[in-house]
Amino acid sequence: MPVLRNIGLLARCLPVGGQSDVHSMSSAAIAWDAGTFRWAGPESKIPAEYADWPTEDAGGRLVIPGLVDCHTHLAFGGWRGDEFEDRVLGRSYQEIARRGGGILSTMRHTREMTLEGLVERCSGFLGEMAALGVTTIECKSGYGLDTRSELLLLEAYQALRNVAPQRIVSTLLAAHTVPPEYSDDRDGYIQLIIDEIIPEVSSQRLASYCDVFIESGAFSVGEARRILTAGIRHGLGAKMHADQLSSCGGAELAGELGAVSADHLEQVSDAGVRALAEGGIVAVSLPLATLYLRQAALPARALLEAGVPVAVATDFNPGSAPSFHLPLAMTLACITQGMSPAEALKGATIVAASAIGVASECGSIEPGKAADFAVIDAPDVNHWLYHFRPNACVRTVIGGVTVASPQ
Amino acid sequence: MPVLRNIGLLARCLPVGGQSDVHSMSSAAIAWDAGTFRWAGPESKIPAEYADWPTEDAGGRLVIPGLVDCHTHLAFGGWRGDEFEDRVLGRSYQEIARRGGGILSTMRHTREMTLEGLVERCSGFLGEMAALGVTTIECKSGYGLDTRSELLLLEAYQALRNVAPQRIVSTLLAAHTVPPEYSDDRDGYIQLIIDEIIPEVSSQRLASYCDVFIESGAFSVGEARRILTAGIRHGLGAKMHADQLSSCGGAELAGELGAVSADHLEQVSDAGVRALAEGGIVAVSLPLATLYLRQAALPARALLEAGVPVAVATDFNPGSAPSFHLPLAMTLACITQGMSPAEALKGATIVAASAIGVASECGSIEPGKAADFAVIDAPDVNHWLYHFRPNACVRTVIGGVTVASPQ
Repeated sequence: MPVLRNIGLLARCLPVGGQSDVHSMSSAAIAWDAGTFRWAGPESKIPAEYADWPTEDAGGRLVIPGLVDCHTHLAFGGWRGDEFEDRVLGRSYQEIARRGGGILSTMRHTREMTLEGLVERCSGFLGEMAALGVTTIECKSGYGLDTRSELLLLEAYQALRNVAPQRIVSTLLAAHTVPPEYSDDRDGYIQLIIDEIIPEVSSQRLASYCDVFIESGAFSVGEARRILTAGIRHGLGAKMHADQLSSCGGAELAGELGAVSADHLEQVSDAGVRALAEGGIVAVSLPLATLYLRQAALPARALLEAGVPVAVATDFNPGSAPSFHLPLAMTLACITQGMSPAEALKGATIVAASAIGVASECGSIEPGKAADFAVIDAPDVNHWLYHFRPNACVRTVIGGVTVASPQ
Repeated sequence: MPVLRNIGLLARCLPVGGQSDVHSMSSAAIAWDAGTFRWAGPESKIPAEYADWPTEDAGGRLVIPGLVDCHTHLAFGGWRGDEFEDRVLGRSYQEIARRGGGILSTMRHTREMTLEGLVERCSGFLGEMAALGVTTIECKSGYGLDTRSELLLLEAYQALRNVAPQRIVSTLLAAHTVPPEYSDDRDGYIQLIIDEIIPEVSSQRLASYCDVFIESGAFSVGEARRILTAGIRHGLGAKMHADQLSSCGGAELAGELGAVSADHLEQVSDAGVRALAEGGIVAVSLPLATLYLRQAALPARALLEAGVPVAVATDFNPGSAPSFHLPLAMTLACITQGMSPAEALKGATIVAASAIGVASECGSIEPGKAADFAVIDAPDVNHWLYHFRPNACVRTVIGGVTVASPQ
């Protein structure tokens, strides 16, 4: 039941007001007990009931809600570093795939992993993410691409809940690509997802969401509708990879199905923006993938001006976004998408929490929510995201417990 | 006099061969004594004379020469974080300058600093850079813009040589912009640089190089020629900020004057590329500035194919590149400029060392050179620059002394 005093700037990121209002307060203090925030306010007005609680000192630094990475592909086997060299030197994806690279190379390595191997590897990533201030993570399957392997990835996330300090939200992405066994029978794979994988994941409560990669070369809008509708019938909320490489009606489908989020959206159409706004759907921006793929940026300003909340996430995966550095993704969201640092911060806290259905538990600093926060060695949000350092986070607290103190 | 064994991959980065050849060797070992490399080779062939030297274990990791950041504006007062928000939201540089922002805001804050204040601040930056594996740094003046303040910045770099572990190379950049006192008499400021600042810097041996920011709004090619020629007369080698925002003949001037490097070059002309190639001049790529300013990338492939060595540096400064993360600059050089990871590594070691005249002392791992190296937690160069982590460096050694062990 400590009180953290001497907070130079407290950015509470409340789920009200516009995305540019992080509800900041200077010379602030926060109090928490039993893993939950009890109070947040000016240091000069700490209520009498906390007078004899132990105090800690934030050193005049910035304090933010624990960061929420609402789009990752955390569990996979192998890496694709040599493919990175091929790509930067201009070799085509087709040529890389011919040499055995691309998503199917990750699938092969993933299928060779054991549950223990997956948990150990992810556990390492989660430790490094905790040091960056990341306290909640959405984790997708999608590199198994058969019933056994997709379930194994989700079981690894389940097991990580007991091992890693973070809150984990799982998403089934069996519809990531069509695996080679079904290359001549894509409908057979879609039927497998609908008839077997979704029901099994649902009955074992292994995921909260179902996701589909909608893109030429992956799944069509019609196929996505079938898969996501089956997911919804089984209690899995809808998410989707939409309009990344081409404007293909993904955002419109998100509106039609009442998805919780539509992710990527670099090529979203005007009608797609309207559909997201009308449906109250979160747009998830993935600026690291945009950077690594050298794509045009997501039109964040058009989305925000239309009233669509824009989350910022890493998309951590071994192909298009091989980094889990969420603060770098936030800086990139500012530079390449024209989001203000405040908008990027809300995008990686309360808005990201809404994109994975946990906004009632975390994502902001307010009484009753989980005491998840990070102490950042910067005077304010603008400075933090402008002066990019390896890691400006000096302390990460989850449910009232300090899980990392990197410096 | 230790021997470091169990190096998974040793990238020696010798000053021979093309830029894509980092002279890598697996299962290697290195030996050093009295601050100098004595031997590098396969672990299975360690010479008998080192048999009784103490051994250390690199854990199968990647070992590279200490990184060389060959273009920074390390010493300055204040920051410009709020201006970053203005810029990402689309406010023009003119509007920002009207509000008191821009380079002149940094000049005002810099002129208020004391020598001690500058040394303390830079010392903090250098410590963080050492943790990233950066062992040699070029430091420019340029935010003082009068005789006293320009000299003070260079005196701070002089003082840092006794405080910080790194090798520091100083550059006079009095010709960064025209200060407000001379706004109606730009020729008066140029004359001050030529008649007073350069001779004083030279007689006190405060810098090795003279640099000019050639750009409309800064200095013309003709003005740069006068200033750099005066520098050369006083023993200061020529460097220049050239062709960043427009193709203005900067690279051509570099060829004419026999400059050691031409930096930025996003807009270099074909004739400029030829001039650099013929003059054996290093092109210094600054991908963080390109990113923060949302510019088109430097044409690294055209330069490399023409035989121009391309260095990679951070351009660390409070305006256009507020980050000293050299490995991030290297990853960006790959993604946005099409350099291979090997080319980026040589660009930030031996090529960068040539860009600041210290290639005979450092920048590669070979007998006789300073024992400056970094141990990187990655299996190879491709993987390191592809999987961007906050800091993959686990140990930095300068002149045989471990100066940082971040993990």
